[in-house]
Amino acid sequence: MIGRMRIAILGFGLIGGSIARALRRPDRPVSPSGPETLVAWSRHPEGPRAARQAGVLDEVAPGLTEALDGSELIVLAAPPLACLTLLDELAGPARTALAPEATLTDVASTKAALVARADRLGLRFVGGHPMAGREATGYRAATLDLFVDRPWLVCPGESATDRDVGRVEWLATACGARPLRIDPARHDALVAAISHVPLVLSAALAESVVGRADAADALALAAGGWRDMTRLATGDPEMGAGIAATNAPRIAAGLRATRAAIDAWLAALDASEPDAAALEERLALVRRRLADG
Amino acid sequence: MIGRMRIAILGFGLIGGSIARALRRPDRPVSPSGPETLVAWSRHPEGPRAARQAGVLDEVAPGLTEALDGSELIVLAAPPLACLTLLDELAGPARTALAPEATLTDVASTKAALVARADRLGLRFVGGHPMAGREATGYRAATLDLFVDRPWLVCPGESATDRDVGRVEWLATACGARPLRIDPARHDALVAAISHVPLVLSAALAESVVGRADAADALALAAGGWRDMTRLATGDPEMGAGIAATNAPRIAAGLRATRAAIDAWLAALDASEPDAAALEERLALVRRRLADG
Repeated sequence: MIGRMRIAILGFGLIGGSIARALRRPDRPVSPSGPETLVAWSRHPEGPRAARQAGVLDEVAPGLTEALDGSELIVLAAPPLACLTLLDELAGPARTALAPEATLTDVASTKAALVARADRLGLRFVGGHPMAGREATGYRAATLDLFVDRPWLVCPGESATDRDVGRVEWLATACGARPLRIDPARHDALVAAISHVPLVLSAALAESVVGRADAADALALAAGGWRDMTRLATGDPEMGAGIAATNAPRIAAGLRATRAAIDAWLAALDASEPDAAALEERLALVRRRLADG
Repeated sequence: MIGRMRIAILGFGLIGGSIARALRRPDRPVSPSGPETLVAWSRHPEGPRAARQAGVLDEVAPGLTEALDGSELIVLAAPPLACLTLLDELAGPARTALAPEATLTDVASTKAALVARADRLGLRFVGGHPMAGREATGYRAATLDLFVDRPWLVCPGESATDRDVGRVEWLATACGARPLRIDPARHDALVAAISHVPLVLSAALAESVVGRADAADALALAAGGWRDMTRLATGDPEMGAGIAATNAPRIAAGLRATRAAIDAWLAALDASEPDAAALEERLALVRRRLADG
């Protein structure tokens, strides 16, 4: 592409804001066609306004239509369910504002439901998922190095051209990440295992403890281990609910596998005299396999 | 007590080493009776030797008997099952080396089994549990500020005198912690909730993922959330097994409560169309209650 590429970021929280900051980081080499034009639109305009003030954005779009106007790369940077709604709008009321050659991508944590929706709507969509995040939310939590050396999973939809895929892989690379093409269903299964199941487990642990009669006394003793295990449950509820709703069967399968492992622990703990040597061997095996992983 | 108090640390890993380093931290006010004499004994003498070289210990005892000789405060700084064995030795073969006025304490993560054993053996024991730790193990991981502002739970046994309890509370305070007296059974129930159940859950999650056929591909995508949720499972297997073996019924009860919460999540995820609004409300409630805790 020749000329300044115009990139629209729809939604401007931690991930959208970090993309803008990564593209505008001082040490990034300027591309031959010059710096990109960055525009953002958000239902909460405080983030885009602050970014515009800081020179991170070129424009704050007053509405979706204005953000789309002339944009070649459009990044849906919202929770999964909000992305589904945005896809519907882009295929419906906002379609006329969308340039025919525009590439759509997203950064949500589930991919199969979004790619399927875009395919059904005939949109040129390349699903994306940077494997990076923090529990802190909003543009104020955005950092310019959030994606550095992280995998950025790329799931082309059936209407996406090579140029669409190339633009999304360029975006990932420009943000410092490593683009990695993957089938959407496989994405959702792998990411359920290492991200979505841990999130639900973190919430379930927290629920089971805050529901105790002696919860306040227990929490007063909590140390780093408790904070580690409940940190995911302190994340954005809208994002967590969207993840659960759009990847439910795979999360349920993973949770059942974890429940089976819990049941094996219960069998060992319920013994009249727990076999400490066997428990130690079991924990040593887990530790080795985590270190090998 | 008048004169330099002699303190013996039996076992010299993260916690024992951090106690010695905390007592020898440069900014600690010297007590009226002068600095304490610190001696350690360990089956792995590298740690005590390194601490002696660094001026953190006054003596490295060649054996248990030599460590006990003349010591007024004896700190069992070993995993729970090793502490039980040490209590047996102190009541048996090593009893003659134990000064009649000596105070015994420990720093293990479970208290009821140890206090019961000491009571049965007629030892003057005050169980202790500093609520601080790291997954790193060994004296090399010890730090001088590990206990600062942390609760240090204190569980007097039935033969312990006020002076014994006072010495242990002094030790906690001298290490920068806040001593807090608690019944051993109540200790084990509260700590199961915020520490032992999370540990087993961390191991169960790791087991359920490393056992997948696509485990390597999943782990290659893992980010901070996965590391948070499996960090506890990377701790010392001997310690984890000792915790599980000496607090099994309370850990099992906590695990069953977490499993019930998981089952409620499964019911929501198994719905033909998951109720995203209800899931969001549920996650928002968890987040609020964690923040309030």
